[in-house]
Amino acid sequence: MGLIVQKFGGSSVADAERIHRAARKAIAAREKGNQVVVVVSAMGDSTDDLIQLANKVCTHDGRNSTPPKREMDQLLATGEQVTIALMAMAMHAQGQEAISFTGGQIGLVTDNAFSKARIQSINKQRIFEQLHAGKIVIIAGFQGVTVDGDYTTLGRGGSNATLVAVGAVLNADVCENYTDVDGIYTADPRLVKNARKIDRISYDEMLELSGLGASVLQTRAVEFAKKYNVPLHVRNSQNDREGTWIVAETPNMEHIVVSGCALKKDLTRVSIKAVPDRPGVAAKIFGDIAEANIVVDDIIQNVMDDNTANISFTVEHGDLADIRPVTDKLCKELGGRTQAIYHGDLAKVSVVGVGMRTHTGVAQRMFRTLADAKINIQNITTSEIKISCIIDKEDGAKALQLVHDAFELDKLK
Amino acid sequence: MGLIVQKFGGSSVADAERIHRAARKAIAAREKGNQVVVVVSAMGDSTDDLIQLANKVCTHDGRNSTPPKREMDQLLATGEQVTIALMAMAMHAQGQEAISFTGGQIGLVTDNAFSKARIQSINKQRIFEQLHAGKIVIIAGFQGVTVDGDYTTLGRGGSNATLVAVGAVLNADVCENYTDVDGIYTADPRLVKNARKIDRISYDEMLELSGLGASVLQTRAVEFAKKYNVPLHVRNSQNDREGTWIVAETPNMEHIVVSGCALKKDLTRVSIKAVPDRPGVAAKIFGDIAEANIVVDDIIQNVMDDNTANISFTVEHGDLADIRPVTDKLCKELGGRTQAIYHGDLAKVSVVGVGMRTHTGVAQRMFRTLADAKINIQNITTSEIKISCIIDKEDGAKALQLVHDAFELDKLK
Repeated sequence: MGLIVQKFGGSSVADAERIHRAARKAIAAREKGNQVVVVVSAMGDSTDDLIQLANKVCTHDGRNSTPPKREMDQLLATGEQVTIALMAMAMHAQGQEAISFTGGQIGLVTDNAFSKARIQSINKQRIFEQLHAGKIVIIAGFQGVTVDGDYTTLGRGGSNATLVAVGAVLNADVCENYTDVDGIYTADPRLVKNARKIDRISYDEMLELSGLGASVLQTRAVEFAKKYNVPLHVRNSQNDREGTWIVAETPNMEHIVVSGCALKKDLTRVSIKAVPDRPGVAAKIFGDIAEANIVVDDIIQNVMDDNTANISFTVEHGDLADIRPVTDKLCKELGGRTQAIYHGDLAKVSVVGVGMRTHTGVAQRMFRTLADAKINIQNITTSEIKISCIIDKEDGAKALQLVHDAFELDKLK
Repeated sequence: MGLIVQKFGGSSVADAERIHRAARKAIAAREKGNQVVVVVSAMGDSTDDLIQLANKVCTHDGRNSTPPKREMDQLLATGEQVTIALMAMAMHAQGQEAISFTGGQIGLVTDNAFSKARIQSINKQRIFEQLHAGKIVIIAGFQGVTVDGDYTTLGRGGSNATLVAVGAVLNADVCENYTDVDGIYTADPRLVKNARKIDRISYDEMLELSGLGASVLQTRAVEFAKKYNVPLHVRNSQNDREGTWIVAETPNMEHIVVSGCALKKDLTRVSIKAVPDRPGVAAKIFGDIAEANIVVDDIIQNVMDDNTANISFTVEHGDLADIRPVTDKLCKELGGRTQAIYHGDLAKVSVVGVGMRTHTGVAQRMFRTLADAKINIQNITTSEIKISCIIDKEDGAKALQLVHDAFELDKLK
């Protein structure tokens, strides 16, 4: 018995039947004597439908205008509001008292950064009142309000941010993240047939995997869970099996050298050649790119003999059209022989594990495995608990399987 | 130049193109130097779609549950929120600064009567701030919030209630109600081909016509406009023609004896026979019926020789299934020979005009007209400015045309 916060994503509440199935899970937890809070996303593709509607309205007289972000959030916040009301109705239909709240109704206050707002506070009083009255409390994910009462949305994976934030303020015993997969796998099971579900993984490992393309949980939600030490349980809404627990690191996790591996496809490497080697140039380059809201990774800088430097980094292929004008403008401003070269069709294969901190030989085994298969490693970047290799995109799936086999990730250790 | 509040109903904002057309009307008024507030309904059939979704969720395991009213309002309030955001985007796309507000965001506070809440107050400060900044202010119709911040809806015609309430608190020069008709007609133009658009009509006449089946404006909105003396202008969103002004009565309105006529179809008369003639019985009967939320009209009571009374009244045919259990139970409780008789397939034809107060002969001309056409009048009810006759439903359309002709309503006087 305790306090459980459950979150059901868009595909788990896509229609009336699925909403009832999710409601049943929450009621089952309630009937075991727990206090239950449910966070829900918008139904299925409904957020995409709203975005399409907005795009249609913003295309006028043959011109395209950008919708004001405040109005976009006003629009998108309706998606979750529909789900919470229907979820409350479904629970009532199943004989369980329940009450729904929008972000604003539980005082979930964010900053003013429309479309990617950050949670600042939640008023837990109204939630506790309803829990003590025996009700299941249903909360709209992905949304909050500014101090002025304007709707904000929390950006990609925002409902998971709501899940963890609500879990943190209520001091929940567990945050259950219901998805359409059984948990976190040692590799993407669509690519690696013998991938194995992980039972327990540390926040730090999950953070690395999230950043490397494991799409189940966004980095931000995991960061928040780590900060407030809220255990996260990722599980399947279509069955009752235990999923993957994401928890604080324990000493006995160290004997697992590699917990999982990941593949990020469709990367492009941007190389800026002959950059004048003087202070502040790198800051200028990455400052301009950040201002354009483009995420870069795998930054490498080499200083050349002629007092210039080569700076390279990767971006997602989809960002190429956005970054080209920025880097081309930068080269013009830096003058001289400075030029940007773009190398597409790349992928990144990575292994992650807290055991690397105390075990040696992981990098060597990974490089050997790829070399034996004649896969060329173009760049290497590492962290304390991660090794990443940039390779050709066409080698990606094969490399992932080979690395998975090399570290025997299909076997429970 | 002044302050205009415009309202666009569901069919006037049913798609992106219509939203743009409505936006253009508001911008045109703004460009003439007016301050403009726009109230909008949910797009087209979107409220019906949400109700269907709720019904689907509430039908579970072969049983039907009633959705909690609070959750129904939480659900339905999203319809208008979608429209306000899209309307703001459309205005931006047309180069006009605009900002949207939900009921809650302008402090539109109602009582707790979910699904048929009454407006208690509106905080006009935020609206005026934005108007002074040169923006068009867009407000979600049909919705408000309780003092606790729970969403409420205002019942049928709720967006018109919002229009008039906003107009009243802002002390607007005019409330423009955009619909898909050119204004108020001397009779329903679908039934009477030579029906004429009325240029000006008094609040009281409009109140009678609304209650008698003229569906453009609900009684409540007109009551509110009368109370706060806000001029209402009903006009067509598809053209720029002047519509019908609904205003306070002026002396020169009196020379128009009959302003319009109306037909209400599908009525059923309920007659309760042999009711014990003792104090409190009528109060008990109509109290029980009101509790079941059924509207009755045309009440007639006759006291018989045997110390009993016959009480009869009309209900809309659609309410028959709801009223039968109530009246049957009443008869059982009253005992004796008391019984309820139901007479369906009735209609009511009415004429309305403030000139009746000072002119005689209106009733006579109406009865003569129907008699000449061999239309049997089953009941007559009157008010100071209205005469209604209950007739057979099959005579309805013909009676309406005859009365329209008899009072020469097609001619401007």
